[in-house]
Amino acid sequence: MSQPLARHERGEAMFKHVFGREPRPGSYPDFLKLTIDHLFGEIWTRPHLSVEERELIALTAVALARTDWELRGHIGAALHLGMPREKIVEIIIQLAYYGGWPVANNGLRIAQEVFAELDTGKDTDHDQ
Amino acid sequence: MSQPLARHERGEAMFKHVFGREPRPGSYPDFLKLTIDHLFGEIWTRPHLSVEERELIALTAVALARTDWELRGHIGAALHLGMPREKIVEIIIQLAYYGGWPVANNGLRIAQEVFAELDTGKDTDHDQ
Amino acid sequence: MSQPLARHERGEAMFKHVFGREPRPGSYPDFLKLTIDHLFGEIWTRPHLSVEERELIALTAVALARTDWELRGHIGAALHLGMPREKIVEIIIQLAYYGGWPVANNGLRIAQEVFAELDTGKDTDHDQ
Amino acid sequence: MSQPLARHERGEAMFKHVFGREPRPGSYPDFLKLTIDHLFGEIWTRPHLSVEERELIALTAVALARTDWELRGHIGAALHLGMPREKIVEIIIQLAYYGGWPVANNGLRIAQEVFAELDTGKDTDHDQ
Amino acid sequence: MSQPLARHERGEAMFKHVFGREPRPGSYPDFLKLTIDHLFGEIWTRPHLSVEERELIALTAVALARTDWELRGHIGAALHLGMPREKIVEIIIQLAYYGGWPVANNGLRIAQEVFAELDTGKDTDHDQ
Amino acid sequence: MSQPLARHERGEAMFKHVFGREPRPGSYPDFLKLTIDHLFGEIWTRPHLSVEERELIALTAVALARTDWELRGHIGAALHLGMPREKIVEIIIQLAYYGGWPVANNGLRIAQEVFAELDTGKDTDHDQ
Repeated sequence: MSQPLARHERGEAMFKHVFGREPRPGSYPDFLKLTIDHLFGEIWTRPHLSVEERELIALTAVALARTDWELRGHIGAALHLGMPREKIVEIIIQLAYYGGWPVANNGLRIAQEVFAELDTGKDTDHDQ
Repeated sequence: MSQPLARHERGEAMFKHVFGREPRPGSYPDFLKLTIDHLFGEIWTRPHLSVEERELIALTAVALARTDWELRGHIGAALHLGMPREKIVEIIIQLAYYGGWPVANNGLRIAQEVFAELDTGKDTDHDQ
Repeated sequence: MSQPLARHERGEAMFKHVFGREPRPGSYPDFLKLTIDHLFGEIWTRPHLSVEERELIALTAVALARTDWELRGHIGAALHLGMPREKIVEIIIQLAYYGGWPVANNGLRIAQEVFAELDTGKDTDHDQ
Repeated sequence: MSQPLARHERGEAMFKHVFGREPRPGSYPDFLKLTIDHLFGEIWTRPHLSVEERELIALTAVALARTDWELRGHIGAALHLGMPREKIVEIIIQLAYYGGWPVANNGLRIAQEVFAELDTGKDTDHDQ
Repeated sequence: MSQPLARHERGEAMFKHVFGREPRPGSYPDFLKLTIDHLFGEIWTRPHLSVEERELIALTAVALARTDWELRGHIGAALHLGMPREKIVEIIIQLAYYGGWPVANNGLRIAQEVFAELDTGKDTDHDQ
Repeated sequence: MSQPLARHERGEAMFKHVFGREPRPGSYPDFLKLTIDHLFGEIWTRPHLSVEERELIALTAVALARTDWELRGHIGAALHLGMPREKIVEIIIQLAYYGGWPVANNGLRIAQEVFAELDTGKDTDHDQ
């Protein structure tokens, strides 16, 4: 692994590349630091997977976890990285078969909310 | 959806494309038919995701499910579709962060067994 | 499997038998079609399990998944199929032991909301 | 709840009714006592669900949990209670849709082992 | 196990010790009785683990289950038993590594709500 | 976070403190480095939780995950840190109520294997 300052800068840059905005300070500076410096600065920057593939994996994992708040954030990230809506929907449809219908119903419900907010101009961005 | 015969043929072709072999008859003809005709014939053939992306999603879901027998099968499929070993390992490392260290430890243990068998010439293919 | 038109008609009939209403169009016609034509038209119509038993299994799985929106839908379906409230509650109590107290607490909280809405006349039906 | 001796007797009787044999002493007398006296003596004996329905719920939950050892035990219990093999297989096929293909593949693999052992005369019974 | 009246009294006392209040009657007297008399009266009172350790385990399990309503209740219990906020946050941070970032993000979001309500004087107690 | 060399040394020391031996090289040097340098060097060394409490949380999470190989490793770690067998068993019994009977049955089966191997002198240590 690497020097602290470089790791933090790489993490902030990667976070912005994925989510399209700066990370929000939030209430837990320690956990934010682990998220930005380590998860985004040292894991998302690793080789062998593109950023788009890492987002595909993250979106799949968060949809399977059914944590709605974070799923909204990762649907937003996928869109920001250029993933078409049809592709996001298709990932969730595949998860009807690899996680079960409840996972897909939940994911499509959240995706529909995110898309509707974007279409009507509401702010849907979330911290990682 | 489509006519039965075309769906079955498409499913067999897709299964072979993913796993590199014919499906084995197995003990449950009804479930095999659902797997080949519907899952591979009507879902894996859908647009908006490439076959490689569908395998990435399936591999992620099965690693998170920690069903070792099926994970072996999907690691084999990923290799057959041309995914380098480093990339399979990298997906599992990302899941240490999106599913937890137990998911990654389990996935890497299974990946190591599959790679070792391939290196020593043992037969590792499994039915989907 | 069967011809498309017959499958769609069987699926719509089975959906209505389970939920007591027509499926809503929703935002994802592809997934609705998979749900109606395949899940309800070709799986729920299979032999060896009665519709009531299939609903018992679905309700159990959705309660274990803790996807509240869909659990509301399946509690409604169970009631529509003639399952007494005491039986729905009893299934969830058994899941305190087969899924843990968090699963049961969550399921009873949702059941209480559904029952209260029915008692006060509010509309609680949901798409599958 | 009830007096200790009656609860223990009811639990042993219910366990035997479900599994077709006496509980084995095992290594953890405290947990065995909780299982026999409370789970089987006070929960499985509750009203509103038949024993067959309770076994259907338990089998569903254990198949979704993918704990193979216990799944073998509950497949044995289901058979002992008179559930045909086709019905056990059908429950697992439904879980391909309510838990995902990995859950069903795993469950059918275990079911096949249990049925094969019964057909060749090996002893497959397990403690709860 | 023990006589009904003593068990109920022990359960109520233990519940109060953990949550800092009486259990609410709720809608399901049977399940409340199982929770108070058995879970708190016969399991939480067992030896080999302190009450604080049992709360640590319960909080960990509920955070991993991502059942937000119950997680709020157990964060309240942990605070009532004297666990500092930093320690509750630290448990959830460890679960980023043993359950995944979605578990930790969800847990910290709920913890932040509970702490904010306490700081502004709102009532955050919940039934177990 | 800190300088690479200090982090690695702290991680090795913490790993040895928890598991009672050196980490094995294994097949995946990158993931081993993340485990030793980051998980053990930067997370297990954090304040607000003792090492024994962190092991309690890890053991709970791994038992709930039902990843048997890693559960064996953490039962070994708990014993090495001085946790009595009765306490390990008691944690798993509590998880019958917070994760379900299948989690507890699986955990006790694994614990019994680890204890039996220790009693007969077999080597049960595993890499994290």
